[in-house]
Amino acid sequence: MNKLLDESLITFAENLQLPEKVVDTDTIPWIPYDDGNCYFKPLRFDFTSGTWTYLFKIKGNKTLTRHRHTGGSVVGYNLQGNWRYAERDWVAKPGTFIFEPPGDIHTLITEGEEEVITLFTLGGALQYFDEDNQIIGQDDIFTVYKKYCDFCKEHGLFQRVDLIY
Amino acid sequence: MNKLLDESLITFAENLQLPEKVVDTDTIPWIPYDDGNCYFKPLRFDFTSGTWTYLFKIKGNKTLTRHRHTGGSVVGYNLQGNWRYAERDWVAKPGTFIFEPPGDIHTLITEGEEEVITLFTLGGALQYFDEDNQIIGQDDIFTVYKKYCDFCKEHGLFQRVDLIY
Amino acid sequence: MNKLLDESLITFAENLQLPEKVVDTDTIPWIPYDDGNCYFKPLRFDFTSGTWTYLFKIKGNKTLTRHRHTGGSVVGYNLQGNWRYAERDWVAKPGTFIFEPPGDIHTLITEGEEEVITLFTLGGALQYFDEDNQIIGQDDIFTVYKKYCDFCKEHGLFQRVDLIY
Amino acid sequence: MNKLLDESLITFAENLQLPEKVVDTDTIPWIPYDDGNCYFKPLRFDFTSGTWTYLFKIKGNKTLTRHRHTGGSVVGYNLQGNWRYAERDWVAKPGTFIFEPPGDIHTLITEGEEEVITLFTLGGALQYFDEDNQIIGQDDIFTVYKKYCDFCKEHGLFQRVDLIY
Repeated sequence: MNKLLDESLITFAENLQLPEKVVDTDTIPWIPYDDGNCYFKPLRFDFTSGTWTYLFKIKGNKTLTRHRHTGGSVVGYNLQGNWRYAERDWVAKPGTFIFEPPGDIHTLITEGEEEVITLFTLGGALQYFDEDNQIIGQDDIFTVYKKYCDFCKEHGLFQRVDLIY
Repeated sequence: MNKLLDESLITFAENLQLPEKVVDTDTIPWIPYDDGNCYFKPLRFDFTSGTWTYLFKIKGNKTLTRHRHTGGSVVGYNLQGNWRYAERDWVAKPGTFIFEPPGDIHTLITEGEEEVITLFTLGGALQYFDEDNQIIGQDDIFTVYKKYCDFCKEHGLFQRVDLIY
Repeated sequence: MNKLLDESLITFAENLQLPEKVVDTDTIPWIPYDDGNCYFKPLRFDFTSGTWTYLFKIKGNKTLTRHRHTGGSVVGYNLQGNWRYAERDWVAKPGTFIFEPPGDIHTLITEGEEEVITLFTLGGALQYFDEDNQIIGQDDIFTVYKKYCDFCKEHGLFQRVDLIY
Repeated sequence: MNKLLDESLITFAENLQLPEKVVDTDTIPWIPYDDGNCYFKPLRFDFTSGTWTYLFKIKGNKTLTRHRHTGGSVVGYNLQGNWRYAERDWVAKPGTFIFEPPGDIHTLITEGEEEVITLFTLGGALQYFDEDNQIIGQDDIFTVYKKYCDFCKEHGLFQRVDLIY
């Protein structure tokens, strides 16, 4: 079986391969996400693909701005609280897994008092609509990363370099 | 702003786009993963890229077979219990996020009595080693999906079609 | 070695796996891309990731609209003609391979009379700027696919279903 | 429209974003690929995802070892020569685009005297079979990169660092 994976290859690969990333989310602060209702803990920014992963926290009984995921998908795993999309019938409870294909348009609503915390991996851009379907703002990997950098500067926090790949 | 995203495009996109997937993990059974120590709940199989997502459960105080992730990465978010790799210094607690680049070789050890539950997204293949570094088995999206299908057949369970994308 | 890949798994996988896609680009028409200077042949639309692949043809001696790749990368392999970005020093000749990370902003200029033909794979969205850095339009997998569908309808052409994955 | 993409974000993103990669394939040597029949020019190694891109050259009238793409897909664009898979009916000519999903098993045959040159992007691992369906070897991003590094060392060539992302 040496042909499959010999020692020299394993040594070569171990020297070459990227270090793994390990983030204890307890050590990451909740960073405000613009609107006063949402916060995030950044976990990973992949600047080769434009995707990022964060914990996203939303206050209870809120309705977020309707938006479209342009050019990227959303993968979510809900950890705490309940939320739904105004445009859909299902409710995300703790333990609900969600895959939303690129192009999805929705309005997130948190149900009840409890804060929602969801693990999300997103790509592409979020584009926010006003009531006339005009785009009034957008986020992508750069704007989210900038929120993190700005927050660190403002609060004199160490900006982790190991969140980037 | 109509040029950015006009109504006809939104209608077109909404008709075309793939339906979202929503999986209430409470409704998915724990499926044995070969060795008597591990179980999984399948959440998503992406047969265009070869990546899959599952909840992975491991009994306490176990040492799993040393393996290499060949040709794909591992992204994990630990939900319950504590585990570590024999080859590393850190310990995954609830709330630890992990990104392991392709090629990583490790031996997972669960610490303490408590069962470990981790959300994992994997690509490529897992190749298992014996003590002489010989490959003694492997898993990829097809073997994992086959475990799910076989389990459903054996127990007369409905095999969900919405886990595939 | 049966443990690595036994016959039952191979049969299972072959029954399950997606059919391959084979596109003879000679059979695909050049489809106008809005501005009178560009045409494309669609090759693949991946609606789970938002990426698409096309042959892109540009007339000689043209300067395209400055744009940003928001939330996705560009991978290109130039097949014919010469082009460059106004913002860069290098020139793409036949046989030049290009990887542009998400966020890149550039103005494509074709050099000389010869038409340019480049194989591109793109994700995320293209956002076009006017001279005051205002966004005046955007494209993503849906707008490109819509151009293809509209062209087929208009010209009574069969719309291939095997371009989608 | 400043809200969509203001100047400070553009400056921030341009400072942060990864440099683009531009590879003039004329400057890359053809590197032997083990078997005496094949050569490659490396274009990109993405060690976060395990995918790589290369130009692959195969002598005319050859039959390559039957193999399976485990845990990753193949995307190809044929530039020169004709080839087919023993297991399929279609023939790849210059200008044929191919997407093969993960798990595909095939035996590549070059038709005629002319050398084949195809642009391939691959992920996961290739596993080679003997006539009894036993796995006799495998390649992934690390083995391919190692062939490149070994060739550079052996021939005293500069090993490009900009092929890695």
